[in-house]
Formats: sequence, structure tokens, C-alpha cells
Amino acid sequence: MAACWRDEMTMLSSSGTVWNFAAGPARLPDAVLARAGDALFRRGADGAAAIERPFTGKTVRAVLESARERLIALLGIPANYRVLFLAGGAMHQFSAVPMNLVDADSGLRTAAYADSGYWSRRAMQEAARFAEVSVVARHNEGEAVAAPIVGNWRLPPGCAYCHITANETVDGLAYPAWPDTGEVPLVADATSCFLAAPLDVSRFGLVYASAQKNIGPSGMTVVIVRDDLLQRPARSAPSPVCYRLQAEQDGCLNTPPVMAIEIATLVFQWIAESGGLSAMAEVNRRKADLLYRAIDHSDGFYTAPVIPAYRSITNVRFHLADDSLTERFLIAAEKAGLVNLRGHRHVGGLRASLYNAMPLAGVTALVDFMNEFMRCNG
Amino acid sequence: MAACWRDEMTMLSSSGTVWNFAAGPARLPDAVLARAGDALFRRGADGAAAIERPFTGKTVRAVLESARERLIALLGIPANYRVLFLAGGAMHQFSAVPMNLVDADSGLRTAAYADSGYWSRRAMQEAARFAEVSVVARHNEGEAVAAPIVGNWRLPPGCAYCHITANETVDGLAYPAWPDTGEVPLVADATSCFLAAPLDVSRFGLVYASAQKNIGPSGMTVVIVRDDLLQRPARSAPSPVCYRLQAEQDGCLNTPPVMAIEIATLVFQWIAESGGLSAMAEVNRRKADLLYRAIDHSDGFYTAPVIPAYRSITNVRFHLADDSLTERFLIAAEKAGLVNLRGHRHVGGLRASLYNAMPLAGVTALVDFMNEFMRCNG
Repeated sequence: MAACWRDEMTMLSSSGTVWNFAAGPARLPDAVLARAGDALFRRGADGAAAIERPFTGKTVRAVLESARERLIALLGIPANYRVLFLAGGAMHQFSAVPMNLVDADSGLRTAAYADSGYWSRRAMQEAARFAEVSVVARHNEGEAVAAPIVGNWRLPPGCAYCHITANETVDGLAYPAWPDTGEVPLVADATSCFLAAPLDVSRFGLVYASAQKNIGPSGMTVVIVRDDLLQRPARSAPSPVCYRLQAEQDGCLNTPPVMAIEIATLVFQWIAESGGLSAMAEVNRRKADLLYRAIDHSDGFYTAPVIPAYRSITNVRFHLADDSLTERFLIAAEKAGLVNLRGHRHVGGLRASLYNAMPLAGVTALVDFMNEFMRCNG
Repeated sequence: MAACWRDEMTMLSSSGTVWNFAAGPARLPDAVLARAGDALFRRGADGAAAIERPFTGKTVRAVLESARERLIALLGIPANYRVLFLAGGAMHQFSAVPMNLVDADSGLRTAAYADSGYWSRRAMQEAARFAEVSVVARHNEGEAVAAPIVGNWRLPPGCAYCHITANETVDGLAYPAWPDTGEVPLVADATSCFLAAPLDVSRFGLVYASAQKNIGPSGMTVVIVRDDLLQRPARSAPSPVCYRLQAEQDGCLNTPPVMAIEIATLVFQWIAESGGLSAMAEVNRRKADLLYRAIDHSDGFYTAPVIPAYRSITNVRFHLADDSLTERFLIAAEKAGLVNLRGHRHVGGLRASLYNAMPLAGVTALVDFMNEFMRCNG
């Protein structure tokens, strides 16, 4: 055991690479990091670097347009949707969504929320200030955690929208299929699964995703909103938070988060050059399968609490059956160059976030370490 | 005249330097640009670059703490104030201020606004959704534009706060002294004069400043708020916009705008190493004097509409007496390496923004060009 412990503590990856499994802000593609400094901070012939340019000028407008076009191409966003890059994170959208979509004058006073875990509950807490919130589904609270069963949701009368958290970053679960909400617009917080795979935007009235997962930088949230929802009066929305006003100004009602948008553009380009979202999905599936397989084949040494159909491919949540080993695991993992594996304080245990920028090699290194740790501590 | 025109068009600065006079986002110090790429995008021993680190981790917390401490040291912020770095721009604060400070339960329903120009009017338009706005002063609408006369303001009953725009970026005017609002907290949008000179924070209940002027990056706003104002219930404020909730979490209720804060830290450091705010103020005064003197000594060829006592030292607004020469001036200036001099569309004419990062050499180049342009076109 003593020898084993020493082995484990010195299991530094031979390449010296440190793999960062943070849930977000998270690892960016190497190619993006390599280019970001020049993209933001090198002065051009106009005497200005990207970070120094007026957002009203042609150069910044071209960057915004390029970011929008690249994202539209990646996702195949239909023409009746508008794409906005807004300041702040998904948590700002938790209030922005009801502020924009509730329309009491037209009788749309209620908002339906599916409770799938930590972030959907945070979203509905915020919404409760601006809408009558109705919980239409809850995830099973049994041993195996699952997303709300899709189908047979009873939406309340006067329903302005139905909100889901497409992937629960903390709980490690995701929807295997989208619910059918009929005429009621389906709104998705897609933050931690956005761009991890193709997404049929036409299924949604609105999709939002904060950037610090698969888009890369923090400080910006993508909002994709269907044209007809921009007709709602949004009387309680502050101007920079109002989708309609921002759409009318192409997202430039006020200074947009230019730095984040510049980096997002590099990420969109990297995804396209890497084969697009289908290629991302294929690698992400392989990464997640590799890790879940190691967990499921550990004879209960490691456990994944989410039932297979609902498991997230981006946020793999797992536990040590003997929770007293968790700290030891984290220390040894860090020595082995595997960092930011601690689960969210709300659920404890361990979590490996496998966004697009995490290569298969990182997951292989993690699985090798997990097997070695099990051999020494099993 | 023809020869003169040719001279003017070929008056490229011999060094090839292009001087960017944008009103914000604006020029950053060379030293900050040189270090920003590494600061944000170079991976450290932990396998992560600043942009990739979890905001809950020690490293990012240390960055936030360092930014806060540096700003407190620069401004000498008293201990009974909290410093927050929030996502978004000053326009987000236009609604955040009334959302946080209006307290109907305690009878604080009204908000006093001084109308000093474009941005104060935008601020009060936003506030009108969340407070009963009372305009307590207006700038003189005569030939010479001035900030509202300070003194003798009649604040309405139940006044939650009194708001001023310390420096009007568009109109080019600034307060020569702060009004005395007695027990009513004075709130300042200090965006475009923040860190241009020392500021006695103790005169204010709240000071906010979006970063893309003297702090540098866009996407972040500094909020300095006095402790007692955090006791107000702020019931209509979304959580990430609530000063109290953010203060309780040291600005980390949600992912903070880390990139912008990292760059701000470099800027704060540069200011301190350059002699602090007194040194900034001295150079800024010399730059502004040089430019205003050139305008005032042009025998009316150039005019500055703001009366001297109210002139901004950061945003110098001026006009050509013959407005038909304005486009020609802008084209020739650009050829001479002097860019982003067009006045805001709301007021027309010309504007040179002389934030901390604009060295005296840039203003000298501008004045030389202006004299030459006058010689050729006067």
C-alpha cells in the first residue's frame, strides 16, 4: 500500500501536460489561445488593437457580423431567428427571459419551468420575481438521478414560455430528447452543452448559452431568439437587456463584450476547421463513453449517479463509493496533472467537464489515473 | 491652396504612429497591451491560462482581490465602501442604480437627476421605469454649454438618491465641483473621468464607471458603494445586478468578467508605476490645456462650445466655425495618423478623447495638424 501510494503521488504525466477539467471557465483550444493575444492586443494599421477600437466603427461591426455568421453556419440557425451576443452570464438571462417574454397585457403571465437540478432551480428562483412560475416537471429524486421525464407536461394557462436547462452542469444530467410544448415557446438554457453537438434551433423559441464552456471566454452570453418573440412588449426589461432593442441595433445598443466576441470568433473558426458540430459530437461521445465505461466497470469503486439515458456528455459526475477517499483522489490527481475535478459543493463527489477543447488524450490520462488509483485503494 | 492641400494630405506623422482619439473603447497604455496577451492566454503551472481558470479557485480570487486592493490604493477609497467589478457597461447601471436604491417601503420613491447632457438623459430615461424621476438641474442651453450650476438644488421629498454624470463624454463637459446633497446619497456616473484625476469617494454614496475609458477593457463596470446603501432591500434587482448580494459574495455571485478584471489590474499597476492619480491629473491637464489653447487661439477657426470652467479634460469637444470643412478635416487628419476624431452624432463636430493612455505626444501631433489645417484652409 505504501509503495502504491508513492506511485500514485508521483504519477505525473510523462509529457508534463496538466489537464484542466474545470466546469467553466474552462480549457480553450490550444489554437485559440495561441492566436487570441494577437487578435485582441496587436495594433493594426488603424493604430488600434481590437480592444481599443470604437464599437461603432466598421472594424468592430465586421467582427460582430463575422461572429454571427460563423455561429449561424455552425448551427444552421433558421432565418427567422436573431443572434445576440450580450454582456454577462447565463444568470443575467434568468431574469432577462421573463422580463422579455412575460406579457401580462396579452394574458401571458405564467412561466413553466422543468426542475432538472441545481441550475434550473436557480433560474426559476430568479424568474419568480417577474412571472408566476409553475413547475411542470421534476427530476426523479430516487437513487438514480434523471432529467424530468419528457412528455405529458401540463402547461399552465397563460403560459409565456416553458424553460428547460438542457444540460445540468452541477448534476451532470442532460435531456435525451426535447419536450414538445406545442404553441408555447420552449426556452433552453443550453450553456454547458452548447456547440458540443448539433442542435435543432427550430425546436426552440429561445436558446441562451453563456460563453465560458464551449464558446470559451466568460463575460458574454449568446441569445438566439425567434423573431415573433421580439414583438412582446418587454416593458420591465432595462434597455441593454431587452432583446428587441438589442436586435434593432444589431446587439450594439451599448458597447458589446467585444473581447469575448473576438475570442468566440476564433473558437467558432476552430470548430468549423475541426469538422463542425457533428465531428465535435462524435469525439465528445467517445470521451464520455470512455469515462463512463471506466466508472461502470469499476465494480462499484466509482459510481455515476445519473442513469445512462440522462447522462451528460460534457459534465461527467461521479463519486467514490468510499467518500472518505475523495480528498486523497483529488490530491493524487492533481499530482498526476489532472486538475479541477472536485464536484460542485452542492452535490459533492467528483466531476470531469469534457468540453470540446478537452482532447481524448486528457480523458485517457484521467481514466488511466482512475484505474491506478483503484488498484492502489480498492 | 492646392499645394497646401497636398501638404496636408501627406502630413503623415514621421514616426508612422497612428494616434487613436476614440471616446471608448479607447487607447490602452503600450505597457498594458504588451503584457495583456501573456496575462490572459499563457498557461501556467496549473495547466490553465487566466481565461481558463475556474472563478471559484484561489488564483482567480487572488486576481479579484489584487484588482480591488490596487483600486482602493489608487483612489484612497474609505473602509466603509465596497468595490465591485460587475459585468456589462454603465448602461446596465442606469437601471441597476434605481433597482438597488429605490426603497418604496421606506418612502424612498423618488430619484433626483441633474440633466447635464446626453448620458445623464439616457440614465434618467432608464431610471424612469423604476423610480419617480425628478430633474433637479439642467445645463444652460445658451451658446456656451455648461454643466448644471451646482448649489441650490431642490431635492424632491422621499429622495432615494441624486444622480449626476460627472463627465459628459458626448457633450464634453464636466463638473468643476460636486453638489452638496446633504443626507441624500450622491450617485455619480464617473465613466469617462474615472482615474483621470484623484476623486474624493467620500463625497458620494455610489460611484460607477464602465471600464472602456481609463480602465481599459470593455465589458465591465466598477461600482463603489457605501455600506449603508447595501441595507436597502433592492427587491426588483435581479441577483447578479444586486449590489448587496454581489458584495456578500465578493463580486462572485456569478462568473465575474475575469478577462476585463485581469486587464484592469495591469492598468491600475501602470497608473501606480506612473506616479498615481495626481501624476495622471497633471499630464491630463497639460494635454487638455494644450488642445483648448490651440482652439481658443485660432481666431474662431476652431470653437469649443463649453465654457472654460465646465470643460472636460478627457473629452475635448470642438467645432470648425465653417462646418463644411469638417469632413475634409477628418479625412486629412486620418491621413496624418490622427483617427477617431468625429464628434458623437448627437452633437456633431469633432471630439478628441484624451484618456490617461494618450501621451502628450499624441496631443502635440493633433495640435500641429490643426494649426497646419488652419493655415491651409483659414
